[in-house]
Amino acid sequence: MIQVAVFGYGTVGSGVVEVIEKNKNEIGKKAGDEIRIKYILDLKEFPDDPYKDKIVKDVELILNDPEVDIICETMGGLEPAYTFSKRALMSGKSVCTSNKELVAAHGPKLLKIAKDNKCNYLFEASVGGGIPIIRPLNYSLTAERIQAVTGILNGTTNYILTKMDKDGAGFEEVLREAQEKGYAERNPAADVEGYDACRKIAILSSLMIGKNVKYEEIYTEGITKITAEDFKYAALLGKSIKLLAQSRETDKGYVAMVAPFMIDKEHPLYSVTGVYNAIFIQSNMLGNSMYYGRGAGKLPTASAVVSDIVDCARHIGKTITCIWEQEDVKLADVKESSRRFFVRVGEGSEETVKELFGNREFLRVIEGEFGFVTDEMTEKEFERKAEALSDLITRIRMEA
Amino acid sequence: MIQVAVFGYGTVGSGVVEVIEKNKNEIGKKAGDEIRIKYILDLKEFPDDPYKDKIVKDVELILNDPEVDIICETMGGLEPAYTFSKRALMSGKSVCTSNKELVAAHGPKLLKIAKDNKCNYLFEASVGGGIPIIRPLNYSLTAERIQAVTGILNGTTNYILTKMDKDGAGFEEVLREAQEKGYAERNPAADVEGYDACRKIAILSSLMIGKNVKYEEIYTEGITKITAEDFKYAALLGKSIKLLAQSRETDKGYVAMVAPFMIDKEHPLYSVTGVYNAIFIQSNMLGNSMYYGRGAGKLPTASAVVSDIVDCARHIGKTITCIWEQEDVKLADVKESSRRFFVRVGEGSEETVKELFGNREFLRVIEGEFGFVTDEMTEKEFERKAEALSDLITRIRMEA
Repeated sequence: MIQVAVFGYGTVGSGVVEVIEKNKNEIGKKAGDEIRIKYILDLKEFPDDPYKDKIVKDVELILNDPEVDIICETMGGLEPAYTFSKRALMSGKSVCTSNKELVAAHGPKLLKIAKDNKCNYLFEASVGGGIPIIRPLNYSLTAERIQAVTGILNGTTNYILTKMDKDGAGFEEVLREAQEKGYAERNPAADVEGYDACRKIAILSSLMIGKNVKYEEIYTEGITKITAEDFKYAALLGKSIKLLAQSRETDKGYVAMVAPFMIDKEHPLYSVTGVYNAIFIQSNMLGNSMYYGRGAGKLPTASAVVSDIVDCARHIGKTITCIWEQEDVKLADVKESSRRFFVRVGEGSEETVKELFGNREFLRVIEGEFGFVTDEMTEKEFERKAEALSDLITRIRMEA
Repeated sequence: MIQVAVFGYGTVGSGVVEVIEKNKNEIGKKAGDEIRIKYILDLKEFPDDPYKDKIVKDVELILNDPEVDIICETMGGLEPAYTFSKRALMSGKSVCTSNKELVAAHGPKLLKIAKDNKCNYLFEASVGGGIPIIRPLNYSLTAERIQAVTGILNGTTNYILTKMDKDGAGFEEVLREAQEKGYAERNPAADVEGYDACRKIAILSSLMIGKNVKYEEIYTEGITKITAEDFKYAALLGKSIKLLAQSRETDKGYVAMVAPFMIDKEHPLYSVTGVYNAIFIQSNMLGNSMYYGRGAGKLPTASAVVSDIVDCARHIGKTITCIWEQEDVKLADVKESSRRFFVRVGEGSEETVKELFGNREFLRVIEGEFGFVTDEMTEKEFERKAEALSDLITRIRMEA
């Protein structure tokens, strides 16, 4: 029997308990042993909960119990999750987590402590919710040199953008509706400003490179400036607008960013709509591959945490290889990276546009302005040219 | 150092050598040790090959060499691959294979021998080429009860159907073109009759259920009867036609089949076009997930074989859990499974159709006939009704 303690009895934590209960037989078979929840750590009271006998408030009780093999850290936030995880690992207990903030901030340190103590720190649920992506990167694409990882990593923003695309509605209106439906938080900044996707692409980039990518250094732009009008141009171009989180190997080094992109309808990520997430990987032998599914939600996320428990149960006393060194990667400057840009400018700038960007096809869907797509150029070059456009309305990057 | 022998220096075998050479650094890091090819077994002569010093004709030399840890069986076919694999496993050498015929025919027996000898029999490359799907099923979706697996598992037929859809061309014409381009074999039966997809869904079904699904018992229908006209109706319905390989848990048991289906453009498999493959999985906690990529080709397939080598290298002396018992599954009769059907009949049958199928919307795109979609019913019920339609032209199943 493998005994587990769940830290944090919120959405994901209670989901973990539910998944283990509902799929007991499948999980036991796959783990090779019965998985049993011994403790649930939470400071709140749950008087009517069927698991109330397992709920404890004192973390020491759990950390000092040699019968506990595995901790599910589903508390979120940096502290006390970081301290608790460190102490668990130091006492040889494996930790499975859905806590992307903590993994992005201290992942390689915790991995090192796990290795030193012959246990595991696993974090499948920290990116892409229930989509298997950490394990495919670590266990499956092991014969590949990965050249780019591009993800739709935030369900809230993908829901909002899909809705704007389909209904022709504005950002504020759709955000309000998403908040009413519970798809967006009351304070939506973490999602709509791209901070959540930024943590997640930091984790994927680190695994892609094998060294630490600091999330603070990833260029991050949210979706708050995207308008219904932008989608009209996108439709005309046979494209949609998605918040992409991307890490790419270039001749100047690794470029990582989170930003809204126009994406063509032939691209596999184009049809990833609503709250779904997907991760598109380009690598040198396999070419393109994609991993698609529910990127959030209680049960999908909990399922990923439980798959980590099963993996820990299969590897008691042995650390599974995960190459994520503590050494920080020096990312290349986003300004040096190249791409095409979609641009909207006020009517009357035709000549200036021609001088700056050459002959362009002018797209007209709104009175008083027009749009066009530039050739490929560096961000720096684009910015220099854009400064000369006195009535630039907006610009959106194009994903090739 | 981990020493490997490659059995069969054909397309995939030479790909394995190429992948190991090209991505030596990445692979060594991921495996935790250098991977080195010691022998290549092939009866043919390769006088100008850079690896000619490693090529041997005598399998005994390899099987008796205690330095060889891992065999890549990329010979294809049942014999001598089966005998060689058995003997390798019995001497404690792990075997990694791309041989779907062998895995479908003798997978659970070879897994048992591997377990008894503390080594591994891995077959990531046998389904979906380079797409990680065997490992996600075995290592990632371990907290799930899987309810259905639906795959586009054959690149040749998907290329043909995509081309027919886009160009409005007929089956024979597109097949000839595919043969000229090398996308289809001179004898295309294994692909176009669905036999290849049948082996692959047998493997996925076995892993889904944990018991053995005999490929001979899977209902299999190819794409040779699909016409350009069928695609006209599909377009009118907002659908396309794909060769799907599916295993589904129903209240009558597991139903497995390979057949052309009409699939809606909202379905994630709809946008899987050309030679790409994808596997769509429905499970009880995660919901829908999908795995997409190159389902064939030298390097993608070889990459999957090499990922198995890395996994073996990480688990020397330890058998990785793979639940595929030798006990055969009794599949439910396909005739008892329910779905909707698209039907084409000759002009003049309107009244008979109404009597048999109720009020239907009649689709007219070709003179002298019309099409309609039935309600959901069992295959048996449909067949009974269809017999009463004297001028039935064709019927295609609908994927919900």
